[in-house]
Amino acid sequence: MTIVTRTGGGMRDTLIECVRLAHEGPPVDLLIQGGRIGQIQPAGVIDAGGAVREDGAGALALPGMVDAHCHVDKTLWNRSWVPHSAGPVLEDRIANGERGRAELGLPSRDGVHALLGQMAATGTTLARTHTDVDPEIGLRGLELVASVAEELADMIDVEQVAFPQGGLLTRPGTAELLESALQQGLVGCLGGIDPAALERDSVRHLDLIFGLAETYGAKLDIHLHERGTLGAHTMELIIERVLRHGLEGRVAISHGVAIVEVDGAQSERILQGFAEARISLLTATVYNTPVLPVAEMRGRGVNIGAGNDGVRDLWGPYGNGDMLDRTFHLAYRNGFRTDEQIAAAFDVAVSGGAIALGREPARIEPGAPADLFLIDAASIGEAVASRPPRRLVLKRGKVVARLGNPVHAR
Amino acid sequence: MTIVTRTGGGMRDTLIECVRLAHEGPPVDLLIQGGRIGQIQPAGVIDAGGAVREDGAGALALPGMVDAHCHVDKTLWNRSWVPHSAGPVLEDRIANGERGRAELGLPSRDGVHALLGQMAATGTTLARTHTDVDPEIGLRGLELVASVAEELADMIDVEQVAFPQGGLLTRPGTAELLESALQQGLVGCLGGIDPAALERDSVRHLDLIFGLAETYGAKLDIHLHERGTLGAHTMELIIERVLRHGLEGRVAISHGVAIVEVDGAQSERILQGFAEARISLLTATVYNTPVLPVAEMRGRGVNIGAGNDGVRDLWGPYGNGDMLDRTFHLAYRNGFRTDEQIAAAFDVAVSGGAIALGREPARIEPGAPADLFLIDAASIGEAVASRPPRRLVLKRGKVVARLGNPVHAR
Repeated sequence: MTIVTRTGGGMRDTLIECVRLAHEGPPVDLLIQGGRIGQIQPAGVIDAGGAVREDGAGALALPGMVDAHCHVDKTLWNRSWVPHSAGPVLEDRIANGERGRAELGLPSRDGVHALLGQMAATGTTLARTHTDVDPEIGLRGLELVASVAEELADMIDVEQVAFPQGGLLTRPGTAELLESALQQGLVGCLGGIDPAALERDSVRHLDLIFGLAETYGAKLDIHLHERGTLGAHTMELIIERVLRHGLEGRVAISHGVAIVEVDGAQSERILQGFAEARISLLTATVYNTPVLPVAEMRGRGVNIGAGNDGVRDLWGPYGNGDMLDRTFHLAYRNGFRTDEQIAAAFDVAVSGGAIALGREPARIEPGAPADLFLIDAASIGEAVASRPPRRLVLKRGKVVARLGNPVHAR
Repeated sequence: MTIVTRTGGGMRDTLIECVRLAHEGPPVDLLIQGGRIGQIQPAGVIDAGGAVREDGAGALALPGMVDAHCHVDKTLWNRSWVPHSAGPVLEDRIANGERGRAELGLPSRDGVHALLGQMAATGTTLARTHTDVDPEIGLRGLELVASVAEELADMIDVEQVAFPQGGLLTRPGTAELLESALQQGLVGCLGGIDPAALERDSVRHLDLIFGLAETYGAKLDIHLHERGTLGAHTMELIIERVLRHGLEGRVAISHGVAIVEVDGAQSERILQGFAEARISLLTATVYNTPVLPVAEMRGRGVNIGAGNDGVRDLWGPYGNGDMLDRTFHLAYRNGFRTDEQIAAAFDVAVSGGAIALGREPARIEPGAPADLFLIDAASIGEAVASRPPRRLVLKRGKVVARLGNPVHAR
């Protein structure tokens, strides 16, 4: 019997009783102290005294997930159904998004709150969200999301990217807004978008954002929808600049499906460049876009994270904010069937996302922050295949959701 | 006020109050009489006397779906998790399936019962299931599924296909078993599988099953995983035989992704052939297999149905038997975003499947069989995007499921 005394600030210890850490693993108890995992012992061993007790009921305990690419400012998540109305190409969606956001009052405080709550309730403990910045909306989106994220700071960590969705070179005034967001400390990460296809001048677009990143010590996360050899060329330009500016480990490319569309020799060179420059690829695996080959890319030392991208917004009607759903798409479309393969896809949503964001990956081990969730599943394979509501979600040791529903602090 | 008197046999009338038939449609009541939809009137108009009342609560009423391609005999649906163990190619999965079925006691009565119950509970009112026939299992699988289907006959209509999963030419004795199943009236539909790639003699394989189909007046449903030009050539051989044997409208090809892999001229000729021979394509849209282009194919007069294929079995760990989930995959991977597009994908799962099976498509209109479900969604678009539990499912006017759970008759 291990005797435990209370530690930490005003927060009571929590004993999570009878969970499993692996398929057919023995039941263990987790003692949460001061927001961290204090001890992991076989069930019944820890004498936690006055700790709050939570019955894990044999559920699987898994580390909190990272939504490494979302757009909470755009969501219509908590509204009644808005039928999709955009035309079929990217430019239509940008235009429709801007038209619609005025009509629908986006970003909406309630929408952002509801979606972040849903993300927390499904086991996401850290999210990177791209917030539109343009001359019309200015920095209002960033300020609104920052304010809601502050309100929900106990439930989920939120990192914002100042994102020039409608263009940067093509929208005079946007670069100044981005710089202002950096100066004010509103963000520590800048976005970019299709430097060639949308912006029509890849070198100038990239030089601008890399210059700002170096000046302000910011990270970069570049939307790259460009396909085939064009997208691959842009990837080469990005690798060159990461190395030149010394931004290794601080730059991510979102989407980046061109990597699977070019020939073996070019793709090989680019993957080497990603590994050397420690550029992460962030994938949403939406619609029928080509899927990033998780096993091959990780095998070559390239970090991959995953995100939900848009969740029920003017860009598309799908999505629910659940990273386990997103992991399912990644695993399913990679053809993963064994538990080991599916666990690798899940690790993309945990470690991959954290590494991309420059954070320590969540782990269920003594000393780690207690960012975790419980799920009624035998293994990660079953968790991803079935995706039942999360039994319990903890963020820094605090219960933030039960049975799929957020528990808001009073 | 319309006054209604009871009609039909021993079954009481049911009044389903306050449902919608379309997005922003006015609320209506549905009077179910003798297993059919007797009347549809604005809410409150029908005076149904002693009818059983069901509160639709403003839910959307949709026609029952057809799972046009599944394998209920293989399922591990109601078991604790069985990690996937097959090798990566089709032959590995066939071998693994046969090894594992002995170990796990498949097909299992309980498994088939549980999966058909789940299918009914999610709004599927008609299913075509391919049941393994081979010298080892003989006709036992067909008999077991027939017996469970009989037990659940009030919940869901089940059509079996006698399916030579392990080969027909390559497994001596299988053809005789198929013929015996037809002679005994156990099935009215025969399966086939990869006549070239697996069976090594497309002409002899096809001639054998087409010969049996003509002799016994049977339908055919041929698994075709063959890719590219090989699969396209097999499609041509199938079209030729449908026309030669006069089996128009009685033959389906399952999977058949080769159609999207060949050049425009060949694909054009084959689609014309499908339309002329009234061959249906049945798709499951699983993993990363190419997706059938719903709009283009339907636009050329080719019927498409959809099915879940395997649900949590030795072939793969995914699936939940819900045709609305399958419709989501079909719509999502087709890039469908508007309500109209998503409704077309849903119609694949309703009319498309029914036509492929030679049945009248379910419709919500007076006189039609009351095969329908209620779902809390504004439109088909939202139903497919969100897929909440079905509020109520009716098969021939009887309530077979409530809030996602099957209601078994006493």
